[in-house]
Amino acid sequence: MERRGAEVVDYSQVFKDAIERLHEEGRYRVFIDILRNKGAFPNARCFAGHNGPKPITVWCSNDYLAMGQHPSVIAAMEEALHDVGAGSGGTRNIGGNTHYHIDLEHELADLHGKEGALLFTSGYVSNEATLSTLGKLLPGCIIFSDELNHASMIAGIRHSGCEKQVWRHNDLAHLEELLAAADPETPKLIAFESVYSMDGDVAPLHAICDLADKYGALTYLDEVHAVGMYGPRGGGISDRDEAAPRITIIEGTLGKAFGVMGGYIAADQMIIDCIRSYAPGFIFTTSLSPVLVAGALASVRHLKASSAEREGQQASAALLKRLMAEADLPVMASESHIVPLMVGCPVKAKKISDILLAEYGVYVQPINFPTVPRGTERLRFTPGPAHNEAMMRELVAALVEIWGRLELRAAA
Amino acid sequence: MERRGAEVVDYSQVFKDAIERLHEEGRYRVFIDILRNKGAFPNARCFAGHNGPKPITVWCSNDYLAMGQHPSVIAAMEEALHDVGAGSGGTRNIGGNTHYHIDLEHELADLHGKEGALLFTSGYVSNEATLSTLGKLLPGCIIFSDELNHASMIAGIRHSGCEKQVWRHNDLAHLEELLAAADPETPKLIAFESVYSMDGDVAPLHAICDLADKYGALTYLDEVHAVGMYGPRGGGISDRDEAAPRITIIEGTLGKAFGVMGGYIAADQMIIDCIRSYAPGFIFTTSLSPVLVAGALASVRHLKASSAEREGQQASAALLKRLMAEADLPVMASESHIVPLMVGCPVKAKKISDILLAEYGVYVQPINFPTVPRGTERLRFTPGPAHNEAMMRELVAALVEIWGRLELRAAA
Repeated sequence: MERRGAEVVDYSQVFKDAIERLHEEGRYRVFIDILRNKGAFPNARCFAGHNGPKPITVWCSNDYLAMGQHPSVIAAMEEALHDVGAGSGGTRNIGGNTHYHIDLEHELADLHGKEGALLFTSGYVSNEATLSTLGKLLPGCIIFSDELNHASMIAGIRHSGCEKQVWRHNDLAHLEELLAAADPETPKLIAFESVYSMDGDVAPLHAICDLADKYGALTYLDEVHAVGMYGPRGGGISDRDEAAPRITIIEGTLGKAFGVMGGYIAADQMIIDCIRSYAPGFIFTTSLSPVLVAGALASVRHLKASSAEREGQQASAALLKRLMAEADLPVMASESHIVPLMVGCPVKAKKISDILLAEYGVYVQPINFPTVPRGTERLRFTPGPAHNEAMMRELVAALVEIWGRLELRAAA
Repeated sequence: MERRGAEVVDYSQVFKDAIERLHEEGRYRVFIDILRNKGAFPNARCFAGHNGPKPITVWCSNDYLAMGQHPSVIAAMEEALHDVGAGSGGTRNIGGNTHYHIDLEHELADLHGKEGALLFTSGYVSNEATLSTLGKLLPGCIIFSDELNHASMIAGIRHSGCEKQVWRHNDLAHLEELLAAADPETPKLIAFESVYSMDGDVAPLHAICDLADKYGALTYLDEVHAVGMYGPRGGGISDRDEAAPRITIIEGTLGKAFGVMGGYIAADQMIIDCIRSYAPGFIFTTSLSPVLVAGALASVRHLKASSAEREGQQASAALLKRLMAEADLPVMASESHIVPLMVGCPVKAKKISDILLAEYGVYVQPINFPTVPRGTERLRFTPGPAHNEAMMRELVAALVEIWGRLELRAAA
C-alpha cells in the first residue's frame, strides 16, 4: 500500500517526550491503590507495593465529614438500587430523568434559598458547562476571575469565548480597579470560590457582592469545599455569612462533604432553565445514576438538620493545626477545615508522602503542579470528625521525625 | 450606594429571550418524570401530570440490554456499597483511586485488546478530555471529524485548539480528499463513531483505517452505542469487524449497554499515561463512585461471556423494524439496534410523543434540534431483549392510529 506520512510523524516520540517531562520535574503521578473500610473511616487498605492489603489511615480525603459511610446514605442507595436499578439509562431529556433527580434538585434549591437547582455528573462539569454557557448567552460579557479559581472554572471561562480579566486572589481593590475600567454597558460576571481548597482561605463574600452591585455584575460562587460544612444548614459560606441571596449562581458538589458524587448549581429558575436548555455538558450526557442521587438526597437532608459533623470537623482541624504549630511544622495559615503543610519542592513532597505511607501507614498525597503553583508544593491534610487526637499525635510525631531526617526547614 | 451599570444591563431579559426562542421553535424541553421498575424493565412509573404514578412502557432507554437491572450488577454494587461506602472521596490522584478502578481499567483494556484503559466520570467527559488533550500534545495537528460526530467530540476538538476539517458523514472519498490535501508532515487524527446514535448507521472501520495508514493519521473511535452490543465479547463494532488493533484510541461508555454510568478510553499505555497526566477533565474531578465501578465491572464481565442479551436485542430490533415497515410507518434505514421513525417537525414529534404517553402509556422521547439537524426531527425507539412481540404490536397499532389522526405522511 502506498503510504504517505505514516513514517513522517513520529507520534510515539511525542507521547514519550510528554511523559519524560513529568519525570524530569519530579511530578509524574503514581495513583495509590486503596480501598476504604466502610464504617471505619479514616481506616483503609492499601494494595500498592505490599503483599496483600496493608491497613492505612487516610488523611487526604475530600469525604470531609465521612458521609460516604453514613448509615442513612448507604440505606438510601441500597433502596434505590433495588427499586430502580443501577444506571439512569439516558440523558435527562431522553429517558434519564427520574423522580430522585427532581427531589434532589428541590432539596438543593431549598438548601441555598434559590428558586431552582440543576444536577450535573460532576462539580467539574457543572462549572465548565455553566460558565461556558452563561458567557455565550450574554453578548460581550467580561468574566472577572479570581486568580486561584479551580481548573474547571478556568475551562468554563475559556470555553465561553468571553474576555477574561483575572483579579489577584481575594484582592478587592484589584477587582474594583478592573470593574471600574470596564464599559458600564457591558455584561459582567464575577467568578470566585468561597473556600479555596489548597490554601484553605475564604473569600469575603459580602464585599465582593458590594462591588457586584456597584458595577452591575452577576456573581458565580463555587462552594464545593464549603457545602455541607458551613452554615447552620450546611449551605456553605454563603449560608454562614447570610450572603446567598446576593449570589446569582451558587455551585456545589455532591462528591466531597456530601460523600457521594455529582455536581450542581442553584439560581433563579430562569437561569436554571437557560443552562438546562443550552449547555452541551448538561444536555448530551447520561444523567447521574439514581443510586447516587438517592444517596446524595439522604446526605443533604441529614446535614441540613445535624451540625454534629460540622462541629466535629472544626474541632479536629483546630487541634491538628495547633499540634503542628507547636511542633514547629510549617503549617500554612488557613481559615477553614483544610490544613496545608508547605514543602516547596515536588521531589521532597513526594518523598515525605512515600515515607509516611511505607513506614507509618499514613496516606497523604503530595500536592504538586498543576494543582498548585510550582514552588508551593505541599502536603494537604483534611482532618474530619473521625480523626481522633491519638491519630493526630502519631501523625505529628511522624512528620517531625521525617522533617529531621530530610533536613527540612521548620516553621519560621 | 453608588451604582454603575446595575440597571444598564438587563440580565433577566437576556435569559427570558433565550427561553422564548425555544418556545417559538417548539423545542422547549420538558423532562418526563419517571422511575423504572427494577426487574420489570421496560416497565416504569410516570409521575408527570397524573394523580400518582402511572405505569408506562419505556421505548427510548439507552440501557439497551437492561443490564441496569441484571442481578450480578445489582449484587456487585450492593457489595461495594457495604464494603467501601458511597463515594470515592477524591480525585484519582488524591485519595480517590480504588482497587475497583484499577480492576475495571484492566478489564476494559482486555475487552478492546489494548495495553491500557482510563476511566472518566462520563462518556461526554472522556471524549472532551481526550480529544482536547491529544490535540494540545500534538503540535499543529489537524483533526478530521465526521460531520455527525457527537457534541462531546465536537467540544473536545474545539477545545484542542487544532484545525478541524469536517468530512461528510461516512464519505470515504471526501475524507481521502481532505487527507491528501494536508501537509504530510503534519500530525493528523481521524475522529469518528462506529454506530451513529440517531440514525443507526455504522462506519466502515477498515476502510477508514486504510486511509489512516495511507496518510499517517491516528484514529479515534467513539463506540458508545456499540460496546456491550457488538462483537463476540461485546467490544463493539471494532470487535465484530476485528478492527480494534488498527484503532489508536477506542472510547466507550459504562452508561448505555453496560447499564451503569461513566466513560473510558482504551489505547497504548503511553497514550493512556499522557491523557491521565495532562487532561484537566480527568485530573481535577472526583473519581467515579466505587459502587458504580463495581457494577460496571460485573456488567462488562457478564457481557464478555454471554451473547444472549446481544442476540435478543438484534431479534427485537429486526422485528420492530419489520412491523413498522409493514404498517407503512416511515422507519429510517438503520443497520443497527436503533429504530428511528422520521417525523420532520419538532412540534409534531412532540405531539406524537405526548399522545403516546397520555393515551397509550408508551414513553418515547421526541428527538429535536440540537440533537438532530432541524427538519429531521424524529422518534427514536431502542427495543431490547425485554421488549416482546405483544408490546411491539401494541406500539405499532398506536403509531398507525396517531399517524392517521394527525394526517402524517406514510412511508414512501
